[in-house]
Amino acid sequence: MRVILDGMGGDHAPGEIVKGAVAASGEMDHEIYIVGQEEKIRAELKKYKYDKKKIHIVHAEEVITNEDSPVKAIKRKKDSSMVKGLSMVRDGQGDIFISAGNTGAQVVGGRMILGRINGIDRPALASIYPILGDKACLLVDAGASAESKAHNLLEYGTMGSIYVEKVFGRKNPRVGLVNLGVEEGKGTSVTKEAYQQLSQAPINFVGNVEAREIPAGACDVIVCDGFVGNVILKLTEGLAWNILKLLKKKFLDGMKAKIGALFLKSKLGELKNEFDYSEYGGAPILGVDGAMIKMHGSSNANAVKNTILKGIPYAEEGVVDMIKGAITDLEEIIAGEQQ
Amino acid sequence: MRVILDGMGGDHAPGEIVKGAVAASGEMDHEIYIVGQEEKIRAELKKYKYDKKKIHIVHAEEVITNEDSPVKAIKRKKDSSMVKGLSMVRDGQGDIFISAGNTGAQVVGGRMILGRINGIDRPALASIYPILGDKACLLVDAGASAESKAHNLLEYGTMGSIYVEKVFGRKNPRVGLVNLGVEEGKGTSVTKEAYQQLSQAPINFVGNVEAREIPAGACDVIVCDGFVGNVILKLTEGLAWNILKLLKKKFLDGMKAKIGALFLKSKLGELKNEFDYSEYGGAPILGVDGAMIKMHGSSNANAVKNTILKGIPYAEEGVVDMIKGAITDLEEIIAGEQQ
Repeated sequence: MRVILDGMGGDHAPGEIVKGAVAASGEMDHEIYIVGQEEKIRAELKKYKYDKKKIHIVHAEEVITNEDSPVKAIKRKKDSSMVKGLSMVRDGQGDIFISAGNTGAQVVGGRMILGRINGIDRPALASIYPILGDKACLLVDAGASAESKAHNLLEYGTMGSIYVEKVFGRKNPRVGLVNLGVEEGKGTSVTKEAYQQLSQAPINFVGNVEAREIPAGACDVIVCDGFVGNVILKLTEGLAWNILKLLKKKFLDGMKAKIGALFLKSKLGELKNEFDYSEYGGAPILGVDGAMIKMHGSSNANAVKNTILKGIPYAEEGVVDMIKGAITDLEEIIAGEQQ
Repeated sequence: MRVILDGMGGDHAPGEIVKGAVAASGEMDHEIYIVGQEEKIRAELKKYKYDKKKIHIVHAEEVITNEDSPVKAIKRKKDSSMVKGLSMVRDGQGDIFISAGNTGAQVVGGRMILGRINGIDRPALASIYPILGDKACLLVDAGASAESKAHNLLEYGTMGSIYVEKVFGRKNPRVGLVNLGVEEGKGTSVTKEAYQQLSQAPINFVGNVEAREIPAGACDVIVCDGFVGNVILKLTEGLAWNILKLLKKKFLDGMKAKIGALFLKSKLGELKNEFDYSEYGGAPILGVDGAMIKMHGSSNANAVKNTILKGIPYAEEGVVDMIKGAITDLEEIIAGEQQ
């Protein structure tokens, strides 16, 4: 496998990106091609010992920043690390593209450069959702599209199921549809229709899930539109952060509390780690004709390393081909809807 | 003021309802009319000392249960505590209706019996959202309608602003629109249009808020459609519950942790209380022609007492009339949209 790594994307690029690449390289046989401004990347690489046969630099002069408009950036910055890296995967010079850069540009770049898989209407951004004290699950769509039709939700559930099975190695993953109540017939016209379609799909559809059940691990694949997905991810982040902040405040309030907190220091650290996204690996973009993974913009070397190591199966296990193989089933279900 | 209380609605009716009514009555001058099966309510009332001039029973033979279909129940169970109680408010025999019964039936009952305020397209269920370590805010819509148009969100923001100002006593409340990002132009076609309309409304519209900022208290009125509102409320509940559960587990794991937890016992109790909805009062239904408040189905006496005491201003401050007074402004903004 050849990993194509965007050396210039993210808040800590290229330093942490390169450091993470070196760390990942030490734990696997695959080659890494770091795309970006050669001099800067070389200067970072010089800081470390690494196997020169396994890490290469591909020069790209331009950088797509978070301020860039996604469509314009992909169209105009032809010599950017992102456009060049995605083109390498399209042209068979790489097997998977990984970037911590501009999320919108990655989604657009995936669609425009790799192209949609024939038969998939809407590629999705799938985000890993941490389940406290348990295995993480996958949330699709995390915000690639603000609005979805029923058949998009069908696509999300099917693609998510394949990804969790192949990349997380979890057999027969439970796919749940976020809805107002568990009963069939709940929700909007879109979720009602999506329920019917997901029921017919060759996946382990467990029905509607209420948002209350998500943090308890009600399913392995959480299906929702990108607006709701964005709300779920950001609310989880904000609420966890505020609870930990309040805990800290309360535990420093008075001598007795401070003593208690001292005894619990390691446990509080463990709790914080439960929410540490850098342990879980990145967010795959699904439905494009090639493997690609988005990392959080603030990714440090550890997050980069984990994303590479945990993301490899997206390419190695042939997830893209499996999604292509599921298209006929999906088309039959969607055709049924339209009659 | 005359409070009309549904004596038969909720998991702990009539026992906790009556107990809560007695407790509230001891702290205010207003009269309470408990509607429901007279014998049962009288048997409960006998357990307490109370001012007989301030608590009355109105007999209603039927009960609307959580299993009842809302529309059918309101249409057919004419002698139910809910239909009778709402009719009393409509007919001027009461000033506010409060119930812990079937939520759907309350929403439908409000629309069918009190009627929509002329000019309001969609009444909303507004839920109190706890902000950790700070004052609670109001989330509109919490699930009365699964789907909303832009002008519904305009109505929600305007009604919520009036309610928070008059009932919470908070001047110039900050109204925020839940969206994918803070920038104008983010989101779905509905939220984009709603942003424009809310900007023109005579309220303190602070723009888009990301879900991450909600638990930090980014605004006093959170505006969203009922699907998203349901997700926000239930995810908050589920996540808080799971974090507390994990905390408890970690704090009992090993002798050292147990000692620390002992020192922190009172602080952990405080943390749990932050999420105790029973302290905050009930959820008003806004946009119907009369004051009405929904309590959680599992309400205990304390929740009933708080809902009554904190809900009185909904009637006393003339919130319904203020919403009527805002209709002309709203109609002008909506007319602008349609040109």
